[in-house]
Parts: sequence; structure tokens; C-alpha cells
Amino acid sequence: MIDIPVSSVMTSPVQTVSEEATASTVAGRFVADGIGALVVTDPATGEMLGIVTESDIIRQVARGTDVDAATVSTFMSAPVTTITGTETIARAAELMETHSIRRLPVVDDRELVGIVTTTDLTHYIPRLRRTLLRERTAA
Amino acid sequence: MIDIPVSSVMTSPVQTVSEEATASTVAGRFVADGIGALVVTDPATGEMLGIVTESDIIRQVARGTDVDAATVSTFMSAPVTTITGTETIARAAELMETHSIRRLPVVDDRELVGIVTTTDLTHYIPRLRRTLLRERTAA
Repeated sequence: MIDIPVSSVMTSPVQTVSEEATASTVAGRFVADGIGALVVTDPATGEMLGIVTESDIIRQVARGTDVDAATVSTFMSAPVTTITGTETIARAAELMETHSIRRLPVVDDRELVGIVTTTDLTHYIPRLRRTLLRERTAA
Repeated sequence: MIDIPVSSVMTSPVQTVSEEATASTVAGRFVADGIGALVVTDPATGEMLGIVTESDIIRQVARGTDVDAATVSTFMSAPVTTITGTETIARAAELMETHSIRRLPVVDDRELVGIVTTTDLTHYIPRLRRTLLRERTAA
């Protein structure tokens, strides 16, 4: 329970986008799908090239960039910090704090299998607390 | 340790913005200050009117809104779900899950004293885990 794997809290499958998509297209995908990040992949090979998040779009807006012209390749974050599905949620939290990021693509055997976010981890806190209280009662 | 109060993990003081600020101004504040939300207040009274987040800006971009013209009053979220500083981080996590939000302004005695986010709560998970492991060893 306490060291549960990332695979059990991640969102899967993960949504992807090509390097050629515009900032406004990405914003539209975020709103339509209720998400805050897309993994950038090569449509031909499936290779992960980067990640684009809400913060990347906000940065374009702050700079006065034309959001209908700017493409993902010019503002995505790369390389991407990733985690494997068998690592623990505590490890995911540590990686997020160390790198000041809120989302980690999950990669198993070089295959993109999901994404885990601060939101996914936060929703786990009440369960972690109940475990701790139950163990105290039993002890 | 397990039921620590929101006040000990929140960011304080919280940054505010007026209803008249534009979407591009808000985006600029997010980037300059490394934050993802601003609490909307009445500059004259300090009264909390709403909250504006990265997702609100993204929604404007997706709609093709003129970000240099759209003002906070037209796209902020209101009313705001809040928490008090003495409530627990587990309660904060529950509120975030229930309302599908990532940030909670912290209000004590009707005064805005801080803001707590999924990022703040995520950074607490490794500590929660260490507490649980330590108690198991002691039991």
C-alpha cells in the first residue's frame, strides 16, 4: 500500500502530439480533453521528442507570440524526465520536486505507457493517511 | 506529523490581481513569478472575488480570444473553494479531488493568508512515507 507503483495511479494511455502542431491547437486539445500536458512524439516512429505543458503555452502568451503560428517544436521541453511504472509514487514525488515539474511520462522498456501528475499523487494522500492511522490502531 | 495543518505547507503571502488585468498581463505574472494562479481581489477592499489559473488562460487561447484585451473579470473562476490554515493536508487533497481543482486559497478569519497547491501536497508524500516506515520499524 505505501510503496505502490506509479503504474497504479498513472493515466493511461497518454495523449500525444506532433512537433508541427500550433500553440492554439495544443490549447484546444488541453481544454477538450481536460488535460494539462501532451507528450511530443514522432508520428512515424513513435519516438518521444519532448513534452508540452500548460506552462509552455502560458510562456508563449506572455511573450506575445502568435499562438496560431508558433509550433510545438519551438516551445516544447526536451529532453523529458521520465519514470518507470514499477517505481514508487514517493519516487515520482521526489523527481517532481527535484526537477520542479508536475508531470512525468511513464516509460517501460522504452515504450510510453502513461503519465503521472501532481494531481494523481495528491489524490492518493487521503489513502496514505488512512493506512497510517489503521496501522497505528493495530499497533 | 500525519495530520499536519495546511498552514505548514502553503505558500504565503499569496499573490493577487485585479479584475481589470488582461489575460496577457496575467500570463506575464505567471512566468515572472513561477506561479500558476492569482487570487482576484478588489484593490480597494481586499475582498476576494475569484481565482485565475493557467487553465483559464489556456481556455482563452483555445477560443481565439484577444489575450491583450480580455480582462480577468470575464474569465476568472468564482466563487472560490477555500480552506482554513488549521485544516489538514488530507482534507485539502480531498477538496481538490471533489472539486477537480489544483489550488486552494487559504482563508483564516476571512483573511486571505496563503494558497496550497497539488505541487505543495505532492512534495509532502516522501515525508509521509518515511513517517509510516519509521512507525512500522518501531512497532
